[in-house]
Amino acid sequence: MTSLSVASDMTEPKEGPLYARVHQALVEAIQRGKLAPGTVLPTEKELEKQYGVSRITVRRALDDLERAGLIERGRGRPARVAAPLVASTTMAIDQDLPSILEIGRGTVAHVLSYVWKMPSADEAQRLQVDASEPVLEVARLRRRYDRPVLHTVARVPAPIGALLTKEALEATNMLDQLATRGLRAARTEMEMRAQACDAKVAEHLELKKGDPVFVMERLVSDTTGRPIQSMTATFRADSFTYRIVSASESEAGQPMRMEAAGLFS
Amino acid sequence: MTSLSVASDMTEPKEGPLYARVHQALVEAIQRGKLAPGTVLPTEKELEKQYGVSRITVRRALDDLERAGLIERGRGRPARVAAPLVASTTMAIDQDLPSILEIGRGTVAHVLSYVWKMPSADEAQRLQVDASEPVLEVARLRRRYDRPVLHTVARVPAPIGALLTKEALEATNMLDQLATRGLRAARTEMEMRAQACDAKVAEHLELKKGDPVFVMERLVSDTTGRPIQSMTATFRADSFTYRIVSASESEAGQPMRMEAAGLFS
Repeated sequence: MTSLSVASDMTEPKEGPLYARVHQALVEAIQRGKLAPGTVLPTEKELEKQYGVSRITVRRALDDLERAGLIERGRGRPARVAAPLVASTTMAIDQDLPSILEIGRGTVAHVLSYVWKMPSADEAQRLQVDASEPVLEVARLRRRYDRPVLHTVARVPAPIGALLTKEALEATNMLDQLATRGLRAARTEMEMRAQACDAKVAEHLELKKGDPVFVMERLVSDTTGRPIQSMTATFRADSFTYRIVSASESEAGQPMRMEAAGLFS
Repeated sequence: MTSLSVASDMTEPKEGPLYARVHQALVEAIQRGKLAPGTVLPTEKELEKQYGVSRITVRRALDDLERAGLIERGRGRPARVAAPLVASTTMAIDQDLPSILEIGRGTVAHVLSYVWKMPSADEAQRLQVDASEPVLEVARLRRRYDRPVLHTVARVPAPIGALLTKEALEATNMLDQLATRGLRAARTEMEMRAQACDAKVAEHLELKKGDPVFVMERLVSDTTGRPIQSMTATFRADSFTYRIVSASESEAGQPMRMEAAGLFS
């Protein structure tokens, strides 16, 4: 990220006073991730030049960003983009493939639908496939002790979908099936959030539309970085808790240990 | 866990046919965690003796447990208690104190209330304090870019509360403040779930009662294992995503790396 690419947000002039233009360009650069958390901002002098505005204008914009919690300033330290709300932590995992992937363990799956379809533009981009190429979409409902607890929709690129039969998906985890074909999951991104349940999923989970649900969006890639599965998992809010425990070892100077697990409540 | 303590659930005879009694005792033992995930169940023969029922009765109960996803059986393998929905993973973190604790970074805090009060029985147990001893309860609202995004209620035992002034809590993270007094967080448990927002918190977060929120319950303990803070953090569902990325290093045989972060969406 160079300061030039921040300035490039200004090539289309925006309405409003000068300070708002500087402010908005910086807000957008931060919110779009062009200015990552921890990045040092250009100095006031540099911003003055970059945007062709006065020092007072620059300061007012930075004051607004600081009040908003988007940047952090300290005496004698340069302004930096603030860390996200819960800052990131990086750790080494002492096992090959985290069992964090096994969201179906302990439940009984029923295949609701198994269809080849053309992906939306977003879906195609996420799976890194051509939008003119069909993908396999499998919706499943998972029950635990006869109660519906989890609704999943998985999408896989065509060459991978060709390996999966509907029958096998009733009995086996999809990633386990792919592993037996030599397709190893090497990277997973999970995003968890709360949301209001839509009408269709609510019916399967025996909820009312709008009831809170815990949603996990997951993208699994193979060792070459190619996506092999994109999944939306919707958990009944009253059935699911995601738990993370981290603790120092008893000896000082030892690394922390962390456990992450989804649990029924 | 010995098989005897499963049987002890049967000392109060329950209504219903014999199979249901065996079944219910096992379900309760699993749900209460007396039979942990992965635990090998007693053999059919042992269960027969333990409950004084026939082999057919035992098998029927085990069949029900398997259908419910509570136990797993395989050819030639003993029955085991099924793993939780997302199985646990344990990893070494290569830093002393994970920044996972810093849920206030990038927001501006306002103290809503700062009160000494008698803890409820649950609160006292959670903080390992006597129910006759007051605890300090601090409610804060955190804004980002002038929008309310996070409501927190923190409870701390009296000796720790005595170190915290209301003024300092407007400006500084509570755990940072305690760290300057030599109180180091050594263990943290976080439980995340979706739920319907209650009326009081909804007002602060500018939501309607019942709107979905992302809730994080956190317990932080010091190096001696003594709780120093219990917190309920309620995030606006439209503002918050918890993201976990895990990936193999490029070299085969290298450990996985994981990043965990709460992010604004």
